[in-house]
Amino acid sequence: MTGQRVASAELAATMDALGRGARAAAKVLAATPRATKDRALGAAAAALRASLDSILAANAADLEAARAKGVGGALLDRLALDPARIEAMAAGLEAIALLEDPIGAVLADFTRPNGLRIERVRVPLGVVGIIFESRPNVTADAGGLCLKSGNAVILRGGSEAVRSNRAIHRCLEAGLAAAGLPSAAIALVRTTDRDAVGYLLGEMTGYIDVIVPRGGRSLTERVKREARVPVIGHLDGNCHVYVDRAADLGMAREIVLNAKLRRTGVCGAAETLLLDREAPAGFLPALLGALLDAGCEVRGDPAACAADPRVVPASEADWGTEYLDAIIAARLVDGVDGAVEHIARYGSAHTEAIVTGDAARAERFLARVDSAIVLHNASTQFADGGEFGMGAEIGISTDKFHARGPVGLEQLTSYKYLVRGSGQVRPG
Amino acid sequence: MTGQRVASAELAATMDALGRGARAAAKVLAATPRATKDRALGAAAAALRASLDSILAANAADLEAARAKGVGGALLDRLALDPARIEAMAAGLEAIALLEDPIGAVLADFTRPNGLRIERVRVPLGVVGIIFESRPNVTADAGGLCLKSGNAVILRGGSEAVRSNRAIHRCLEAGLAAAGLPSAAIALVRTTDRDAVGYLLGEMTGYIDVIVPRGGRSLTERVKREARVPVIGHLDGNCHVYVDRAADLGMAREIVLNAKLRRTGVCGAAETLLLDREAPAGFLPALLGALLDAGCEVRGDPAACAADPRVVPASEADWGTEYLDAIIAARLVDGVDGAVEHIARYGSAHTEAIVTGDAARAERFLARVDSAIVLHNASTQFADGGEFGMGAEIGISTDKFHARGPVGLEQLTSYKYLVRGSGQVRPG
Repeated sequence: MTGQRVASAELAATMDALGRGARAAAKVLAATPRATKDRALGAAAAALRASLDSILAANAADLEAARAKGVGGALLDRLALDPARIEAMAAGLEAIALLEDPIGAVLADFTRPNGLRIERVRVPLGVVGIIFESRPNVTADAGGLCLKSGNAVILRGGSEAVRSNRAIHRCLEAGLAAAGLPSAAIALVRTTDRDAVGYLLGEMTGYIDVIVPRGGRSLTERVKREARVPVIGHLDGNCHVYVDRAADLGMAREIVLNAKLRRTGVCGAAETLLLDREAPAGFLPALLGALLDAGCEVRGDPAACAADPRVVPASEADWGTEYLDAIIAARLVDGVDGAVEHIARYGSAHTEAIVTGDAARAERFLARVDSAIVLHNASTQFADGGEFGMGAEIGISTDKFHARGPVGLEQLTSYKYLVRGSGQVRPG
Repeated sequence: MTGQRVASAELAATMDALGRGARAAAKVLAATPRATKDRALGAAAAALRASLDSILAANAADLEAARAKGVGGALLDRLALDPARIEAMAAGLEAIALLEDPIGAVLADFTRPNGLRIERVRVPLGVVGIIFESRPNVTADAGGLCLKSGNAVILRGGSEAVRSNRAIHRCLEAGLAAAGLPSAAIALVRTTDRDAVGYLLGEMTGYIDVIVPRGGRSLTERVKREARVPVIGHLDGNCHVYVDRAADLGMAREIVLNAKLRRTGVCGAAETLLLDREAPAGFLPALLGALLDAGCEVRGDPAACAADPRVVPASEADWGTEYLDAIIAARLVDGVDGAVEHIARYGSAHTEAIVTGDAARAERFLARVDSAIVLHNASTQFADGGEFGMGAEIGISTDKFHARGPVGLEQLTSYKYLVRGSGQVRPG
């Protein structure tokens, strides 16, 4: 890996020790029954609630240090904890405890003509590495998901949140201890040495089975570029809503407004509105007007610009942009096939929706759009593991390999084959 | 990637054109019904049979060129085709046609409280790159598996088999044409430029979704090291048979002999025999004697050496060696837990077996051995997609990510979520 710095011997020793501990803990977790894991989750939730003051004090010190460095705005907001956010972490761990244990589930069970009975059963991946940025709640959320899915985890948070992460991590350790599980099952990289990330990505192939980046595009891009183990992560959520000629205009308006504006900073927010060229003449001004009236900037093709004077002309770059803001690109396309083509060219294979009353046109869109989630007559903002009933999630994968769409407990697992015989040998 | 040669502009243009063609063909294949794919497979099988003479002539030219270069022995045997091998390829394509179409299968189907109906359906991965060595039959086998699983494929065979591969590939193209499918659906890299492999691995991330190496360890290691897209492949099959104190000696003898000697060159062949230290005294000489009498070399620990004068002392390296030959390492271990520990330390997570009449001890072994396939009272040589009823396979994966164990049609797929609503928007 060109240009990568060489880690110090001290850092290497520290990280390798974490890796060995996690690997050993993973063996224990793989054979740990559900009740024990759920007890650890419940005890960790109780510890979070009991440690409210010390977590807030640690967070205040992080915030002060960040402000002293000139950090501001959105990053400070992501870093900040309050009693409600800490309660949400505790409740999140309790919600994970209520989810079905994925481990041990029999995915297939069949008997061969020679009498061999073959089962495919779910097992943990092993050790998960999580690299995240400023939100300290990831420590609890990701730690809980990995524990419930039987994986050991090595967490590496942003250096600006180091005190908060340590305080939360102490509560997770208390939960593990209460259930008799090894503390190395949820390990936190305590050093703020910036080389630790490079070491996690490149030098721990013997200890880590998969890396999950949680943060902005630059973090994910770095992880995908440098990691020498598999990565689960999404780069972009450039999501589309296509309004078809056979749409109900009222439904389309509600879906477009919700998909774009309910929350603009989530990966399932719509970034481009595609309208069927054959839609009734009133559709375009009505949809654009609703967005504009709600305070959304619209960047459009010539037809959109002509439909409302407030629309500004879109550039080629707009079709490929994930704004994560109250801005939307808008254009006419040639029906379902035109929408499919536009999405294939500019989309990021995350989440797209069609609004139409015509079932055949909807099915064509669902079949031909090659994205993790494709919706008919519903908002793209449903792209969320919780909305899918999966409970907590660790992100939305736009990869096709291993995990696609919401990454919850099941996506943090593998499987193995158990074959039971009575002395069979293979002929010839 | 340091030390990698830069591909010529001509090679880059050739490869990119293959990539664009495969990407376009993948879109067609993803929407192609089973009957069309099966028609192409059947027509390709017919073309192979009808082209017997030209394939044999191409193969003879490959063999002559290889001999002129001083190639001999096993490599020549792998390269050589005869009417039986060509018929096996044709029959293999027909067998793939008989397999269920994995694409479109509904993997999950549930309705949320808000009325959203969510389906998870199987889709192809997209474009598969296959890099293989001297066996020309991989052209037909891998081409057929990718076609049936709805994937376009780019095949890159060994340069010593280039004429044979081209002749077989023409038959596959004839099959595609007969079914009205694009010839780019099964693409063959026709250049023998050695830089083509590096270009496939490192420069075609926009065109290739997954790479499957088929060949020896050095090929797989190179692919895993250089590939910038996901890889499905196994490195080692260092498989173990553990004979427990509660085993039936006759059954143990049959299983050990079969696991080691049925075929020594397959990845599921046993490489180490582990015997319970508490087994009856007669077990060790009986099992080792059977192997030695059958012509197998045994490299053992002191107990094994003491049991039969023909046993030679094992070195530490023997426990980690995949012999792929009539050689086996043998040692005593402390019961099931000792076997599990030995396998965790030296094994390659491929396939291991326990022979025992004690169900509880068997279940402990099955639960604790972290390998793709774990067998009770059966030979490790059953590690094969065909023996699992999966039909043709493209290898055995020892990874936990995405595919584990035999890689057949299902393992060449991904999934997507189809969400059907009636105007739902997400609250708050």
